[in-house]
Amino acid sequence: MNGVCVATYRAFDDKADFHKKALSIAVGLTVGSWTELPEAQKAEMEKHLGKVVSVEVFEAQDGAAGTRYADIAIAYPDINFSRDLPALLVTVFGKLSMDGKIRLIDLEVSQHFASAFPGPKFGLEGVRNLLGVHDRPLLMSIFKSVVGYDLANLQEQFYRQALGGVDLIKDDEILFENPLTPLEKRVEACMEAAAKAQSETGQKLLYAVNLTGPTSRLAEQARKAIAAGANALLFNVLAYGFDVLHELSSDPTISVPIAAHPAMAGAIYPSPHYGISASLLLGKLMRLAGADLVLFPSPYGSVVMPREENMAVKDALLAPLHGLKTSFPVPSAGIHPGLVPLILKDFGRDVVVNAGGGIHGHPGGTAAGGRAFRQAIDAAGAGIPLREAASTPGHEALLAAIEAWGVRES
Amino acid sequence: MNGVCVATYRAFDDKADFHKKALSIAVGLTVGSWTELPEAQKAEMEKHLGKVVSVEVFEAQDGAAGTRYADIAIAYPDINFSRDLPALLVTVFGKLSMDGKIRLIDLEVSQHFASAFPGPKFGLEGVRNLLGVHDRPLLMSIFKSVVGYDLANLQEQFYRQALGGVDLIKDDEILFENPLTPLEKRVEACMEAAAKAQSETGQKLLYAVNLTGPTSRLAEQARKAIAAGANALLFNVLAYGFDVLHELSSDPTISVPIAAHPAMAGAIYPSPHYGISASLLLGKLMRLAGADLVLFPSPYGSVVMPREENMAVKDALLAPLHGLKTSFPVPSAGIHPGLVPLILKDFGRDVVVNAGGGIHGHPGGTAAGGRAFRQAIDAAGAGIPLREAASTPGHEALLAAIEAWGVRES
Repeated sequence: MNGVCVATYRAFDDKADFHKKALSIAVGLTVGSWTELPEAQKAEMEKHLGKVVSVEVFEAQDGAAGTRYADIAIAYPDINFSRDLPALLVTVFGKLSMDGKIRLIDLEVSQHFASAFPGPKFGLEGVRNLLGVHDRPLLMSIFKSVVGYDLANLQEQFYRQALGGVDLIKDDEILFENPLTPLEKRVEACMEAAAKAQSETGQKLLYAVNLTGPTSRLAEQARKAIAAGANALLFNVLAYGFDVLHELSSDPTISVPIAAHPAMAGAIYPSPHYGISASLLLGKLMRLAGADLVLFPSPYGSVVMPREENMAVKDALLAPLHGLKTSFPVPSAGIHPGLVPLILKDFGRDVVVNAGGGIHGHPGGTAAGGRAFRQAIDAAGAGIPLREAASTPGHEALLAAIEAWGVRES
Repeated sequence: MNGVCVATYRAFDDKADFHKKALSIAVGLTVGSWTELPEAQKAEMEKHLGKVVSVEVFEAQDGAAGTRYADIAIAYPDINFSRDLPALLVTVFGKLSMDGKIRLIDLEVSQHFASAFPGPKFGLEGVRNLLGVHDRPLLMSIFKSVVGYDLANLQEQFYRQALGGVDLIKDDEILFENPLTPLEKRVEACMEAAAKAQSETGQKLLYAVNLTGPTSRLAEQARKAIAAGANALLFNVLAYGFDVLHELSSDPTISVPIAAHPAMAGAIYPSPHYGISASLLLGKLMRLAGADLVLFPSPYGSVVMPREENMAVKDALLAPLHGLKTSFPVPSAGIHPGLVPLILKDFGRDVVVNAGGGIHGHPGGTAAGGRAFRQAIDAAGAGIPLREAASTPGHEALLAAIEAWGVRES
């Protein structure tokens, strides 16, 4: 549709007239009142009036309490809100979020609205270009422990990760500006380690340093980090708001990819009755706001998101969206080398395999952990079963990983 | 406690060893690993290590599935995070929010952390001082319809509200920057109506104009609104992030009270298993971030929050909190004059009675709607039953309201 943003909700109610509810949303969240307006005024107000697009009611055959719901789609005219995410979200789910059991499950923005969003500056292909890697999933690793450690320790941790052949290393999201490892010094120390590792491995590497501090100073902090050598940023988007990411990603001076961390997302997406779906929260909105890479809980590990939701997040990051670049999906948590074939099966080649414990916890140490993943990625990409690959010479790291964690086929 | 912020969680699990889980949170979200550290390093890291404060397990006698939970309190050393709300929230509930059925129910910040927060600039008493009203609840009204209306219409709506004797008028939260009623023109038109009404009623009035647009330009927009005559601001805090409110409220040039709107809050507080409790989200965090008035769903109307949660929000806004000013509680939605005695019973005198439909829907019109509320407030404050007050001369507005909506005693 043109000139409207369409929000789809899932509303639960054992008895409600969902068609009536849909109409009250469409009117209440736009012109406020309709039936009592004089006819002459209706003509003028028509262009502001929300419209019910569809109402699909689902009732369990046994009519069990708590199972009846409806998916309701409402079209909101663009003319009603400014072209920013706070305005859109407040319009479609501001007051309504508090109106009983209701969940925002999708949002189709208009071309007009989307045109205010440049989207990811690099996107999936741009990140691949920076690394010069086009034919396989990327590998990201996370520091093991960061709080309370000094520069020398982080540099050493960084070097060992880099030696293993990872493509990206990210800060832990709980590493804030601190006297032991202040932003610029940390960037310098880590990029020095990156250069040293590259001289040995020949491999490029992106370091996503955590962008933290007061909102109004984030852009300046980003520029400082970049001036110190940072070639990527990590950002806790939901702790700051989508609009802050939008402004950072739109800033021409912030010339490096931004990886969006999902911190706090669990307060919003997991309930079946409330909140915002993962595919919208961590998928479409992150991409619209300009995240080049998006981390989200994998369906494999301890911090779980059901597989179906994972696939919906992936689709939202990769499907056509008003000409915006795609964002790299980074399913995270609980990842070990034995999961790589499954990750490729679920996500395809365009995925970042992201591991913390699965790298540092390798019996041969951190560098061996990275190598095991790279070997798993190469084997899986070539269609070679991991156990078979692990038994060939030079694959000792993979073999040790499989002995430690096994291989999960599905 | 000194030097630590204590987060309390409610975690649901039918089988988990909650003591073990608590320990893994305390270690995992601070130093990352502990038992494998060399003793010499432990001494150095001790000051960064999170501590389990308490674990209380609740089990239903019948052991029904889904009913077993624990309240877990963890102390996080201040030294681990910068003194801003994104850092605190990401530390205590960033990754953890995605780790199963877990909810953040309280947060006790240290004096050291709180000292970075000036809190509400005016607070409850400051708002009373601006209005010169100290002996009764305040009355706030909301525009009936705003989207698609022009300046003349809003000015007329404003005037009719002001004539009824309301103390505060707020924009609808879905009124964004728009060509029909742009911010500065809207402020001028409404403050002109306020002056006109004041010349007739003798009563002061605060107009909370909606602060919207890109995050980096909000402070400038606020200054423009104030220069145009605005004497209060409305702000959709959760659509922008607590830190943005913190920065706005700390800005010495933004010299008017800020009313925090709860838009989007329903995506976060209502689930029993996920999210953040209303008392923390709309209570303590709003106050820490500097909201002078805080709107939240009332327990009376269509947009409901259970009474117990309402009282917890009120307490969080009014209880001692590191010397910060208190924030005015504004329970909203579904309010009509017949509810005023109940509101006073629940909230006491220090409350803002906030109405939309209960004012505009009055049989005698908007101004009569305001008068009915003021009469109800005066009667309830004097301990006179509403029906009795309504039967005395000069209380026709109250009588009509009671005939339309009744009186609810409990």
